[in-house]
Amino acid sequence: MEIIRSKSNQLIKETKKLQQKKYRKNSYLIEGWHLLEEAQKSGAQIEIIFVTEEGMNRLEISDLIKVVSPEVLAELSDSVTPQGVVAQLALPKKSLPEKLTGKYLVLEDVQDPGNVGTMIRTADAAGYDAVFISTKTADIYNMKVLRSMQGSHFHLPVYRMEMRELLERFKISQTLVLATTLSKGSVDYREVSAPVSFALVMGNEGQGISDFMAKNADHLLHITMPGKAESLNVAVAAGILLFNFNLGVPQ
Amino acid sequence: MEIIRSKSNQLIKETKKLQQKKYRKNSYLIEGWHLLEEAQKSGAQIEIIFVTEEGMNRLEISDLIKVVSPEVLAELSDSVTPQGVVAQLALPKKSLPEKLTGKYLVLEDVQDPGNVGTMIRTADAAGYDAVFISTKTADIYNMKVLRSMQGSHFHLPVYRMEMRELLERFKISQTLVLATTLSKGSVDYREVSAPVSFALVMGNEGQGISDFMAKNADHLLHITMPGKAESLNVAVAAGILLFNFNLGVPQ
Repeated sequence: MEIIRSKSNQLIKETKKLQQKKYRKNSYLIEGWHLLEEAQKSGAQIEIIFVTEEGMNRLEISDLIKVVSPEVLAELSDSVTPQGVVAQLALPKKSLPEKLTGKYLVLEDVQDPGNVGTMIRTADAAGYDAVFISTKTADIYNMKVLRSMQGSHFHLPVYRMEMRELLERFKISQTLVLATTLSKGSVDYREVSAPVSFALVMGNEGQGISDFMAKNADHLLHITMPGKAESLNVAVAAGILLFNFNLGVPQ
Repeated sequence: MEIIRSKSNQLIKETKKLQQKKYRKNSYLIEGWHLLEEAQKSGAQIEIIFVTEEGMNRLEISDLIKVVSPEVLAELSDSVTPQGVVAQLALPKKSLPEKLTGKYLVLEDVQDPGNVGTMIRTADAAGYDAVFISTKTADIYNMKVLRSMQGSHFHLPVYRMEMRELLERFKISQTLVLATTLSKGSVDYREVSAPVSFALVMGNEGQGISDFMAKNADHLLHITMPGKAESLNVAVAAGILLFNFNLGVPQ
């Protein structure tokens, strides 16, 4: 069994580049056993599995496996405590459906990778149909986003696109746009009832939604805070709203 | 004006120790202008303000100010991008009220500093009366927790104590204990209505609440997830529940 022990190995150097967005044209990296299992379950196209000798016994024999030293594995991972496996997956080819009818989450220029990942995971848990992210939102194939998403991108599609085009498509599909504002010059979310087809928009952590979004949304809403904190974390606010507007039946 | 430029200055060395829990007997450190303003507004006892020359003009002249070089300031902060001010505050002396009647959040062994801080901030926003944390929960005077709390510990008291004693006190005060479980062997939160006096318990990120807590809580509840994600981030779950059980009137 050949074990790659050098960080300057050509394959390792090429693979490591995928940690940077500009090199993620066709492939991306995931780290850890949980994400690998989710990838396998969802039928994602796995290109290479980098694993330490110790982790080998957790995998079925396959041509995709490259055994590496723990140091080389750490080089491919951005985690402080790498779990012994990193996989290279093909970026999925997604085509936007003609009609956008369903329950959607929209992230407009959300910057923090942890917030982006957590919100996609929450939309998945709440049974939403897809997530749309603006071109300035953190890339979902960033390893930090992938860690906080916990595999939710295998469960529901995430589309990156211009907000202008998205709003036009929502209009054509008669999907109601509910945009969250940081100010109180909008209605409390409990006064709004969501129809079957709607999109909930969350804005940037510091700035909130854009003026363009505020002008074009069907409803502007906020979460009334009876306490003294000035604001909520955006992922917490999204959780409150996603579960409020989701019409799941209690079990 | 004397400027401290050496990291081996005795005062700097002593102050830096406050980054570690074992040295936080009487004082703790906060970082950034927002937290300093919150501390001033709340009347917290400020012992020393370390500021760079550049930040000086944002402060009124006071004996508490020590001017330091940017390098020395970075030494006192754990932030990647320090904001130019670090303050040493006295740890508040809090005594537990005789009767525990109100709306409370309880954190049992929550480990991640970001989660702990975000949940206290959310309880503050939702108008809860206090937060109780178990002895194994991340210390709230950790700089990461302080950053995600955004000053909420100046708005509502946070008590660290044994869960056994806390549950006895809740029982005596007839405060209902609602504990969140990760399993579905409990009721959906929308089937429970909270009385005037209750405590919402959130457990450890991986393990959930303890067996002791599960046995002694009045109700066990979960959030029904119609989607495919296996779980919610604990701070997101807390946000959904805190706002659901909080009886604030929409504005």
